[in-house]
Amino acid sequence: MIQNELKKAVGIKSVDLIQPHMTVGLGTGSTVYYMVEELGRRVQEENLAVECVTTSNRTWKQAEKLGIPLKKLDEVHTIDLTIDGADEIDQNYQGIKGGGGAHTREKIVALNSHQNVWIVDQSKMVSHLGKFPLPLEVNPFGSQQLFERLQAENLHPVFRVDDQGNQFLTHMKNYVIDLHLKEIKHPHLLADWLDHQSGIIEHGLFLDVVNTVIIGSDNGPKIIDHIR
Amino acid sequence: MIQNELKKAVGIKSVDLIQPHMTVGLGTGSTVYYMVEELGRRVQEENLAVECVTTSNRTWKQAEKLGIPLKKLDEVHTIDLTIDGADEIDQNYQGIKGGGGAHTREKIVALNSHQNVWIVDQSKMVSHLGKFPLPLEVNPFGSQQLFERLQAENLHPVFRVDDQGNQFLTHMKNYVIDLHLKEIKHPHLLADWLDHQSGIIEHGLFLDVVNTVIIGSDNGPKIIDHIR
Repeated sequence: MIQNELKKAVGIKSVDLIQPHMTVGLGTGSTVYYMVEELGRRVQEENLAVECVTTSNRTWKQAEKLGIPLKKLDEVHTIDLTIDGADEIDQNYQGIKGGGGAHTREKIVALNSHQNVWIVDQSKMVSHLGKFPLPLEVNPFGSQQLFERLQAENLHPVFRVDDQGNQFLTHMKNYVIDLHLKEIKHPHLLADWLDHQSGIIEHGLFLDVVNTVIIGSDNGPKIIDHIR
Repeated sequence: MIQNELKKAVGIKSVDLIQPHMTVGLGTGSTVYYMVEELGRRVQEENLAVECVTTSNRTWKQAEKLGIPLKKLDEVHTIDLTIDGADEIDQNYQGIKGGGGAHTREKIVALNSHQNVWIVDQSKMVSHLGKFPLPLEVNPFGSQQLFERLQAENLHPVFRVDDQGNQFLTHMKNYVIDLHLKEIKHPHLLADWLDHQSGIIEHGLFLDVVNTVIIGSDNGPKIIDHIR
């Protein structure tokens, strides 16, 4: 199947996990797009009762148009289930997110969710993380010094730029530095080091977060459940 | 002496540590105010050659008016010496900062400085940290969930409000949550836990940072040097 068909299949499949009266976190991305479309259909046609929070304005607008009931994160007590994409998932089901520069919100939603589901096509499954550049959302204030510190640590930092060649800005008007690491040998040690650096708002390592992965493959969506 | 006289005396004394051609970080606060005034005098009257970065717009404006040469943080390679205040300093010279809500910038400047000097009046010296509420700069997105997590950890969080009773906003338009802990028994363990929480941009624990403390006392400024 072509990649978009794989994405559509896992997106639709993932909606089966949503039970009536759940509070659901809706992620962002091309696979999530199909999930939100299917959820909208079930809300409309099957009167599936849910309330949802989103990790981006883009998903908010899509869901709003489909008539999916929406809440702001601060208006809900907990999130039962969040369905989001991932940029890379390793053999231990650790992940990298943030290719879209929204990983800070995505992590806050994920960590406030009882269950996290990642929906991906098979190209995202890797043996080791790191071929996908690891995104850091960073405070513009002192970002040059931080960049040099990351260079000195051999973490191969590159400031992200937009299509016009200007500094990419996140929703919070911060910069993004991508670490071109090729292979991350010790994700937990790296995450711990990054957590302690001032100036890094959030990094894109999502460790010990996901409970269920749905992988789009030529044989149909493959569900890996009870991961943790 | 009245408190303002103590502050003025340590502010003036601290400028003795600034050598010609240094890059100097200028903090923020009522004690730092006197330091910047004295530095301005020496730049004007003694042609002391320095370049300075600041942790706030307020100090930037004060220094600019005094003719102190200023650079943006990203324009300097390293900072030789930063002089700043502190809200509390314990017997091991660990500190709390952030009463003014600027601790994120203050920490970034401090961690990019070869030497850090704190100038305080004697009322800031305590046996244990924590009587002064510990400030957290937090992402508004998910701040209610974070607040509840902090409550569940018995960290006694209180959202900071401004004079009009509205949410206090930092320079980066984030919220501040103050932890009313009374006594922090294990500052490093608490800092480590806070570092790992998504949604906390920066906390006000400044551990293993300061090299020199100048304390205003009735017997004149007392210098404690070579702390680390």
